[in-house]
Parts: sequence; C-alpha cells; structure tokens
Amino acid sequence: MTGHVVALCGGVGGAKLVHGLNLALQPQELTVIVNTGDDFEHLGLSIAPDLDSVMYALAGLSDPVRGWGRRDETWTFMEALKGLGGEAWFLLGDADLAVHVQRSWRLAGGASLSEVTGDLCRALGIAVRVLPMSDDPVRTRVLTAQGWLDFQEYFVHRQCRPAVQQVTFAGAASARAQPEALAALKRPDLRAIIICPSNPFVSIEPILALPGLRAAMAESDAPVVAVTPIIGGKAVKGPAAKMLSELRLEVSAAAVARRYAGIIDGFVIDQADPAPQPLPGVMFFRAATLMVSTDDRLRLAQTALQAADALRPPAA
Amino acid sequence: MTGHVVALCGGVGGAKLVHGLNLALQPQELTVIVNTGDDFEHLGLSIAPDLDSVMYALAGLSDPVRGWGRRDETWTFMEALKGLGGEAWFLLGDADLAVHVQRSWRLAGGASLSEVTGDLCRALGIAVRVLPMSDDPVRTRVLTAQGWLDFQEYFVHRQCRPAVQQVTFAGAASARAQPEALAALKRPDLRAIIICPSNPFVSIEPILALPGLRAAMAESDAPVVAVTPIIGGKAVKGPAAKMLSELRLEVSAAAVARRYAGIIDGFVIDQADPAPQPLPGVMFFRAATLMVSTDDRLRLAQTALQAADALRPPAA
Repeated sequence: MTGHVVALCGGVGGAKLVHGLNLALQPQELTVIVNTGDDFEHLGLSIAPDLDSVMYALAGLSDPVRGWGRRDETWTFMEALKGLGGEAWFLLGDADLAVHVQRSWRLAGGASLSEVTGDLCRALGIAVRVLPMSDDPVRTRVLTAQGWLDFQEYFVHRQCRPAVQQVTFAGAASARAQPEALAALKRPDLRAIIICPSNPFVSIEPILALPGLRAAMAESDAPVVAVTPIIGGKAVKGPAAKMLSELRLEVSAAAVARRYAGIIDGFVIDQADPAPQPLPGVMFFRAATLMVSTDDRLRLAQTALQAADALRPPAA
Repeated sequence: MTGHVVALCGGVGGAKLVHGLNLALQPQELTVIVNTGDDFEHLGLSIAPDLDSVMYALAGLSDPVRGWGRRDETWTFMEALKGLGGEAWFLLGDADLAVHVQRSWRLAGGASLSEVTGDLCRALGIAVRVLPMSDDPVRTRVLTAQGWLDFQEYFVHRQCRPAVQQVTFAGAASARAQPEALAALKRPDLRAIIICPSNPFVSIEPILALPGLRAAMAESDAPVVAVTPIIGGKAVKGPAAKMLSELRLEVSAAAVARRYAGIIDGFVIDQADPAPQPLPGVMFFRAATLMVSTDDRLRLAQTALQAADALRPPAA
C-alpha cells in the first residue's frame, strides 16, 4: 500500500519507531511531527530534546548504551563547566552541544525552529521531513506537591521524583501548529497517522493540544494507530508508568489506549500483555513492541502500518 | 620593595608575564588590566580571548604546545559543528567552550564582564585581581585594502594576511574604564605599572584609549615599565612585527619603545638586540625576554619590577 504517513512522537521510544518507519518507507512518504513541550532554555542555549532524539536516531548518531544523546560522545565541556561552578544538572555532551549552539545561534538570528531543524536534518543527511509541532514556544509544566515545575526541572533535575497531579502546556492555546504538519495531516493521500510509543501525557498530548491539530486528525480518512509505550505494566523508559499511577489511572497499555479513545482507530499492544477489555472504536493489535535492535524497529513500524492498512475502509 | 603593581596586558605573551608577576608578588599586590578589544560575539557566545589567556595562564590551564587555549583540550564540539555545516573558522575547544557558555549566560543575565571575570577567577582558584579594561564593549577593527575588518575576522579568519593601514577601537571614546582598574592606577602605594610584552597596536593601545586611563598613568608617581614584545626584529607570536612594517615603522624593540614615548619611564629590551638609540625620558634595561619556562616568566617579572624600582625617585 502506498500513500503518505504522519508520525507523532516525542522521546527516545518514539524516535526508535520513527527510525523504523524511515526504514519501512521512502523518505518522501513520511512526515514526523515532534513534541517541543520538553524544549527549554539552559545556560542561554535553546535545547530541544525530542527533536534531537529523532534526528540522532534517523542519522544513526544515537548512543546505543545510554539510550539518549550521541554515540562516541565526550564530556570535556561538562567537566570544565563543573570546574567553573556552572550548573551541571543537565548533561551536555560535547558533540550534542554543537547542535544546541548552532540551533540557538540560528534562532537568535531570526530563523524559525522549523527552518533550523530542516537545515540540521539536511546537514545530517536526513531525507525525511522532521517538523517541530510548532514554531511558537510551548512549555510543558507539571503540578506537584512542590508546586508547578518546568518539565526539565521535574524530568532531569528532580529525576521525576515529585508525584504529578496535573500537566499543562503553557502557550499551546495561542501557539500555531506547524503549517506543514497540519497540511500533512490533511493530505488526501494520507495512508496512516501513527502515534509513536511515547509518553501520552508529556510527549503526545502537547502535540494534540495545538489548535487545529486534533480536528485535522479527526477529519482525516486515514486510520490513526498508536503503539503502546507500556509493556507488562512498565514504561520502557521514562515516567509514563509512574505518571499513570499518580494520575490515578491503571498502569497498563489498555489505560493508554483509553486515554487516546476518540482519537485512535487502532492500538498496538505488546504480545505478552493480557488481552485488553474491548474499547469502542478501537481495534487492538498484538506485536513484540520492545525495540532493541534495528530489525525490531523496522518490524514494529511494519506492524503499525499494516494495522492502519487493515483499518482502512474498503474503497467506495 | 613593597607596594601595589598594575599590569596592562593582552595576548599570550602578556599572560605569561602576568603569570611571572603572580609568582613574584603576593596576590593582593597585583592588579591586572586586560584588553577586551579582541572580544567578540561568535555563534551567539561572548568570547574574550585575552581574559581567557590570562585566566588560563594564572590557573595553570594553558596549553604549553599550541600556545593558546587549554591543556588536555578535546575537539568533539568542533568536529560535530563541522558536521552540521556550522562556522568552523574559530576553533573552540570543548573545555574552553565551558568558559564561553558560562560567561555568555551570565552576561545575558545582566552581570557585568567584571563580575563574571571575578567569579570565573574565584572558581579557578585565581587570587589576583583580573579586570577587563572596561565593562562596556570596545571592539578593535583594522583598516585593510579589503576595508574595515573586525579584529577576529582579521586575526583568525584571515590569519593576519591583509596589510593593516589603520587600527581603531570602536566604542572606546564612550566606554567607561573599569572603575577598580582606574582606582588601582591611582593608589598612593603604587610601586609600578608594567606594560606586558603584548602587541602595542591591538593589545595595549585599546586599554590606553579608554577615557581617563592614560591620564591616571601620567599622574601616577609610580614608574611605568614596558617589556618588549619584539625580539631580534620578530614578534614571538602574532602580527606585531608585521603590523610595525605595514604601519611603516621600524620592525624593532626600539620602535615599540618609541611608540610608548611619553607614557613609559623604562623599557626592557632583549639582551641579544642591538643597543637602541637614546630616547628622552626612557631608560632601557636589558634582559633575556623570551619566556619558555615558568622560571623565565618569574625572572622577567623580577627584572621588570627591579627596573621600576630603579626608576623610582629617591624619597623626599
């Protein structure tokens, strides 16, 4: 089956499936819409962790052991910064820093985040269209017993320790969804919209919070298929399971599917998980969803695409 | 002899003598006024090469082989930046970058260059007072056949190739000399003012161009002693000799002494150089002025201090 595919993603798991989709499709068949709610300004640098995760995964630059940042990274900057008494809670690798410096400098010169991302992708040999969800700043914040915290303060500095009571996306209501992202969702040849295995609360919902985006997805004829970020009641990485619990939701893949009810047509659950209760309007698919190897990424991408193709109503 | 010493410097040769003065004196006996005409903004970072050279020399962090930057430096950032198609003509080591990022971030937050420099020095264990010549931006520019060039464009990007016809210090006339620097020059217990072996045109004259600075030196009872940056008709490092020639001056230590006429009381010339023509108001001293080892730095500092002490008029 041919046609265009749009992927919504954020975080490392999402980046892995995007890599798989890139292997399964031709470059011109895929548009990736990336969460920027995690973005923040640190030491005067504009840091976009989810865009970087996607770029590094697509360019083959991801560190395979740490699971974040760049392979063959060095840490001289960080050691020197500590020696100067600088803020050292957010780890910045020497190679990673090149992306932050280049992006910050371009943004300060008036380029949009989309333009900068496009140029970085071209320089890294990435042919797929990678788009920030918006060129306007949207900042995820979480309400905890210690008050509202900026996302990276919660996620990195406090290592997700405070219990999350509420999540908000500051600026989302007045932000403009990235125009090419919206246009991609409205393509007549759209084959599938894939929601990657990312944290629903802080990776996918910031994207869905942008004006027009949820409507564009609802109006599309293309099937929407999400892939579970929860396997065996645990998140592969990050605080998704902890957040489900703190928000008094069941800690399961099925709870993530219910969270997406009304948006998705299909949901890929891990083959080892118990069969979920039926959910109106959502068809469940089962697959090996843990992505360790590159082959795992490709296979899971193919599963998600086949699920979407299976959900497509027969041509009139 | 006791009393306070003020050193004017810029560049690597100047930093070496400052290190020697630091070894010869107690920390509270020395104030260093550093050229900031070389400072520039690059990739959004505030870079202050001469301040860094002095800090690295005093902290024992200078690279002994390259002659600039930090020892045990790595270059991962630079390689990654090239991979992104970024501007690669100005080399930024990974550890060096920590200083630029920290400084830029502090300046953007409203701190003065003096405050930031003081904090960096404290973090690096530097007890001597190191002051930028001004907290206001002063930018050295050179007129060449290719028009006016920013200093680093001339110095690094074009590797000093264009012939210099004229030098200007943009912003100097309206800049405020660093108040503690001016105050140090006005101390009643001032023992000596040492002009380090730095390029007169682009390291020392930017300092002298600041309002009130030249007058404070003239009004001081303390002897002013300069150390030659030219040995055997050649600059140890940098374009001082080339500039002397391009500005139609004799390429010699004596020409530098003449350049400082009216400001200095003494001039330290290399022992291997020919005896200079007498210069009214200036006494010449001879010494081994090439600083290879740490001992060389200490010995040359002691020579400069002894020269100043010899020039002091007998107490009334």
